[in-house]
Formats: sequence, C-alpha cells, structure tokens
Amino acid sequence: MKSVIINIGDEILIGQVVNTNAAWMGEELNKIGISVDKTIVIRDREDDIHQAVDEALKTASVVIMTGGIGPTNDDITKESLCSYFDTRLVFSEEMYSHVEAFVKKRGREVNENNLMQAYVPENCTVLPNKIGTAAGMKFTQGNSVLYSLPGIPFEMKTIMREQVLPELVSSYQLPPVIHRTIMTFGIPEAFLAEKLKDWENNLPPEIQLAYLPSPRVIRIRLSVYENAGSVIPQLDDAISALHEIIPEAIFSDIEQNLEEVLLNQLRNCKLSISTAESCTGGLIASLITSIPGASENFTGSVVAYNNNIKTQMLDVPQEVLETYGAVSEATVECMVKSVKKHFHTDTAIAVSGIAGPDGGTKEKPVGTTWIAVAVKDKVISRKFMFGSTREVNVQKAAYSGMFMLHNVLRNFNKQ
Amino acid sequence: MKSVIINIGDEILIGQVVNTNAAWMGEELNKIGISVDKTIVIRDREDDIHQAVDEALKTASVVIMTGGIGPTNDDITKESLCSYFDTRLVFSEEMYSHVEAFVKKRGREVNENNLMQAYVPENCTVLPNKIGTAAGMKFTQGNSVLYSLPGIPFEMKTIMREQVLPELVSSYQLPPVIHRTIMTFGIPEAFLAEKLKDWENNLPPEIQLAYLPSPRVIRIRLSVYENAGSVIPQLDDAISALHEIIPEAIFSDIEQNLEEVLLNQLRNCKLSISTAESCTGGLIASLITSIPGASENFTGSVVAYNNNIKTQMLDVPQEVLETYGAVSEATVECMVKSVKKHFHTDTAIAVSGIAGPDGGTKEKPVGTTWIAVAVKDKVISRKFMFGSTREVNVQKAAYSGMFMLHNVLRNFNKQ
Repeated sequence: MKSVIINIGDEILIGQVVNTNAAWMGEELNKIGISVDKTIVIRDREDDIHQAVDEALKTASVVIMTGGIGPTNDDITKESLCSYFDTRLVFSEEMYSHVEAFVKKRGREVNENNLMQAYVPENCTVLPNKIGTAAGMKFTQGNSVLYSLPGIPFEMKTIMREQVLPELVSSYQLPPVIHRTIMTFGIPEAFLAEKLKDWENNLPPEIQLAYLPSPRVIRIRLSVYENAGSVIPQLDDAISALHEIIPEAIFSDIEQNLEEVLLNQLRNCKLSISTAESCTGGLIASLITSIPGASENFTGSVVAYNNNIKTQMLDVPQEVLETYGAVSEATVECMVKSVKKHFHTDTAIAVSGIAGPDGGTKEKPVGTTWIAVAVKDKVISRKFMFGSTREVNVQKAAYSGMFMLHNVLRNFNKQ
Repeated sequence: MKSVIINIGDEILIGQVVNTNAAWMGEELNKIGISVDKTIVIRDREDDIHQAVDEALKTASVVIMTGGIGPTNDDITKESLCSYFDTRLVFSEEMYSHVEAFVKKRGREVNENNLMQAYVPENCTVLPNKIGTAAGMKFTQGNSVLYSLPGIPFEMKTIMREQVLPELVSSYQLPPVIHRTIMTFGIPEAFLAEKLKDWENNLPPEIQLAYLPSPRVIRIRLSVYENAGSVIPQLDDAISALHEIIPEAIFSDIEQNLEEVLLNQLRNCKLSISTAESCTGGLIASLITSIPGASENFTGSVVAYNNNIKTQMLDVPQEVLETYGAVSEATVECMVKSVKKHFHTDTAIAVSGIAGPDGGTKEKPVGTTWIAVAVKDKVISRKFMFGSTREVNVQKAAYSGMFMLHNVLRNFNKQ
C-alpha cells in the first residue's frame, strides 16, 4: 500500500513555513501500515497541481493533498481539482448551513468569501471540517483515492484523525510497518557505526538500519516493512545486543527526549533538581520545564551569564574566577554545589563555557566547556571541547549536562 | 531561473525528521532570485533517486539535493549519483587529508567508514565540508547543474552559504524576486485581516500579500515576482501605510526574531537586562542568549519554578503568595523589582503563569499569566489569558514579556 503526499503552497517553497504537515502525515500513515513513497511540494498553480496529481495517481493507491482550499483569492486547489476530474462546483445546502453557523457563532455575518466555501465539486465526497470553514474532499479514480485537506495544521489533523485514517484502516487490509528507535548520545556517527559493524552485519535481512544524527543525539532506527509480526523476536534480540555493545550511550529504547528520560529518572528516584547555567543561558531549565509536571521535581535555576552574578548568587569566590577563570573545573564545582544548597535540591547541573563566536583564547578556544553534576554529596565534573558554532555548542552543552546526570542516576537505586 | 530541491531520507518521509532543510534552502534561493518550483522528498533507494534526478534535470536549471552522503551503509546517494552520471568513485588524497585532520583533532583514529569518505565520484567537483567529513559534490549535465550536499543542517548551510550560493550568483544573471516581511505580534489573524482590508484592496496588482500565522508571531509578506525593481517605491509606500494602521503591532520590517530586535534596542539604549521566570522556565533567557554578543547586555536570570525560590531568591513575601497567589500582579511586580535590584540591571522581565496541562482552577484557568516589565523606575504589569496547550502558553508568555519591554523601549530615547 503506497501513498504520496502533495503539499500546495508558495509559502512552503519560499521557506516561510516549514512543512510540518508532511512530517505529521507521514508518521500517522506509517503507523497504520501505509508507507509514504514521496512527498511533493508545489506552487499554487493549476498546471503544477494537475501534473502532480496525475503523476501521483499513477503510482500510489492513496494520495493526500493539503493547502489551497481556503476562502481567499490565492486558494485555487478546489477549482484545479474540478478541472482535473472534469466536474464543476455546485452549491451545497449542508455546507452553507455549517459555514453560516460557524461564522455567526463568532459574531459575524456571512460574507462573499464565506459563501464560496459552500460550493463543492459535484463528484466528490465532502469531509466536514468542524473547526473551520474549508471542508475536505475525497475523489476516487480507478483503484486510487485522493483526499484534499486544509493546510492549517490543526484542521488537517482533525480531519485526518477523525475521518481519513479510520476510513483507510477499514478499507484496506494493511500489513503493519514497525519502526523501533534507540536514542544514543556521546559517540559520533562514524565511531558508532564502527562499534556496531558486526552487530549490523548480523541483522536479519528483513530489518533495515538507519542512523539519524542531529546536534543533540544520534537515533538508531530499525525498520521492518514486510512480515513485521514474525520479526518481532529478532527485533527484540537485536536491541538487547545493542545494549550490550554500547550500554554507556543509550538513554532510551523509545523515541523520547533526554529531558523526558531524565525527568522520569528523577521522579522514580524521588529527587529534586536545580541548575546553574552560564553559556547554556537557561536552556537546560527550559528543556526540563517543557515536560508537563516538571514542577514536581524541578525547583529552579540561576542563569549566571555575568561573572558578578556567579560571585554574588552562586558563591564563586573572586579568587577562583581570577585564578582559574569562569570556564574552569573550580568554577563549575562551586556553581553546582551552591545552586544545590541554596535551592535545597538533591541534584544539580552547572555549565560554564565559551559558546562563541567571540570570547575564545588560545588556551580556551570557542567551544571549551566545563560541566559539573551533583547528586547528594557526590560531584562529578568534566571538560568538553565542542566546535565553533554558537547554537550547536549551546545545544551540546545542555545535552551533555543532562546526559552526565542521567548516567549518574542510572546506578542511583543500586547504591 | 528555476530550481528543484530533492531531499533524500526515509526519516523525513516517516515523519521522524521535519524537513527544515527545504525551508532554509527555498528561502536562500529566493533571496538570490532563483525560484523553487518543487520540493521532492524520496526514500534512500537507488531507483527513486535516479527517477527524481532525471525528472528534475529535465525541467530545472539548478537541482539541489541533500542527504545520504554520510559514512554509514544506509547512505547510498554517492553511489546512486555515480551510476546515474555513469562514473565511479576514486580516492582523493585531498579529501583523505581533510578527513584525517578532522578525525584526529577530535582525538580519534581514521577508521574504515572515515576512509570511505575520501572516495568521490570521478567526474564531480568536490565542495569541501569544513565542519564535517562528508563533502558536497557538483555535477553538470547540459545547461543544468546538480549539487549534492550533506543532510545535516549545519553542514548543508555552511556549504550553501560559502560555496553554492556565491557560485550561483556569479554564474547567472538573476532577475530579482522581492519578498518583504513585516513582523507583527499581539493582534489575532482574523482581526488583523479585518483592520487591513482596505489597505489590502489598495495594493498594486504586482504586489502579492500573504498572512503567515504562528504561535509566536504573524508575519505579513508582500511579494513581487516580476519587474520587481520598478515596484520598490510602491512597496515602500504600502509598508509605510501599514505602519500607520497597526503601529502598535509591528516590531520589525525585516524577518527578524523579537529577541534580536529587543537585544538591539537594549544595545542602542545602553541598557542591561535580567529576567525572573516561573512558567517560562528560562525560555526568555535562553532566547535572548541565543543571539551572539548577548553577554554585553544580558546579566542573568532566576528561574523560580518553586514558590520557595520566589520567596527566597526574589523576595516575594509569603503573605503575597498566600493572599494573591503565585500568579498575580503583586507577585510578578515583586519578582521584576527584585531581579532588577539583585542583578543590578536597568531593565527586567518577570513572568508567572499556569502553563498546564494541570494546575488550573476556576478563577485561574490554565493559560492565566501575569507579566511585569521594569525599565529604570517604571514598572508595568499585565494579565494574559492564553489557551490550554502548555507549549503554546510558554511560547506566548515568553514572547509577550519581550514584546511588552520592546514597546516600552520604543519611546525610551524620547523621554
């Protein structure tokens, strides 16, 4: 069962909008066993729409389009589909009632643009849009089906979830597609691949391997596209073997952020946390508090960007700053002990580094970063040499700090 | 001058990675007058790569590909391009020296995977990658040119910026395409469109208008695709008129983040800043410090997630918390004054709200947020009612806080 996604909109092609719709749709289609072979983004032009639809219907059983069905003049998808499927727009009483009710509820009167929303292609099945005025449409041609949905993510997702996906599940006998993702941190891709070479060569042919690197983590993905049900024991074995080869690098067997894994550890161990951040500028605090319920364990943070704040709020002695510098083992150890003490927490993370682009010296080039973590009375600190790019350095420092604490907490209950 | 972007990678199609590369590339190509007609995302399969390349080279003068040129076995783009362009991989001394130096600098030895990175297609021009081991490649066919670049965003961007874009600018006579983007905050889209209706109807036909909403800001984009040079005066007039209609909502006439605009204001006014954050969890500090050079003006922050920290580090009296609650005008005013005083800054932002999903009450539902800003002796505070989604609430609170300070600073020099 193959599918193609077509997203229509100049704003995507000129990069003003990132195509999150395609990512979400790809994920959802995969979950129900439909693989996406191709995603195409095209302009709001009739010729381009005709060509993309024509090509997609030749190769795919399911084609899903988004965009260009709103009320304004630049929305031409509905008309283009009429000309492609050789049909015409007809007035729909039902659609009109919906649009009228929708608009009136918001204290306005139906205007000309709203009225146009009540016209739909004669030979399509209308997919009602309960949170907007642009309805989805479904066309069939031969053995293929084409859905045209709004481009507004929330509206698209609601119609997909409530109408398109259930219909696809019930219409086809879909074999499951399985993806398992193992999250790793701390080993660069080429070295990870080297360590895993024998393991990779021993994978059953049905299991496909992919490495997904990012500045934060490397995800190892195992995919099974055919006969997935029967391969599950081998998948489990492969993942167990992976844990034996790189136990120090794996922080999750499911697609989970490090901040979520760390917060779960803190919850399980009943430990509180605070952070003292210099070059990360509050990013660690921001990541941890992005997880719902973080307030149970996360107490707070001091962002000490300026050295005076390190002295005044985090008790880093002036002599330490003068003798060792702000980016030093002595400084981060003072920071971590101090924030843990003042915030009365069980654990803490402290980071001080040179994010760049300026501020580097010969002894401490841009990217030099010291990180300390504290759990109860234990303090561990480590020096990192990241690269030359500010954004990447900040990300890596935040993730390295969380990962150091994560590693200490792995053995916490065993102590 | 037309172009097609091809992004290779199963991880994009299954929605594991959002295609931010295509957005960035589309934006940069547009800036130099190259319009992107189509973006295609395909799987890591030789047949699919051949077909996409073939089709793209038939219609576009410039084809840019990303992905699949890393060191692991699932990276098959280099081999697929060799078979498409009927060439073979050859060992490059130069590439090997680069890879060796790169790997050794990071304290490791060259392994077999690294070694493979030193092989490049015989008939391509190598585009060195100074921040990674996978070089870019350039192939020509007839009047078309194809670039194949790494999929890792930072590496792709660096090669684009330093090699591909300058080469395209110098190779072609490119007619300008003009996009002007006005950044607004604080007026919902429907009301913005209503306020701007007459203005929109009076736009010259050559100027195309688009509204691009996001949780943070609404961007108003004016585009001119033909004879752009002669329309510049009308564009300037349209933007001036816009400023007269919604002066309170516009924070930039160029595509700039609010944090960057705010930091520039602080620089120009020679003012320092600190923040006291509860529900935003350090996000404001993190946004401001994402801008290079932030340390000149940004001093630090207290993230007071727990009420004890509000009392202890930010002098919020226990009675205030008991009488008015943590999410109240009295609390945020204490917070803003206190952080400004302790951090010895000229300005400060304080935020306290209920981000959700839990913690709401009938009187103070999820989304209720108080924000205070201080500039010298002046303190302004305001209550906001955001929605029910944690992530959106945190984003909106951070942006609202920065926007309040931005608005006070607009008139700072005039005082």
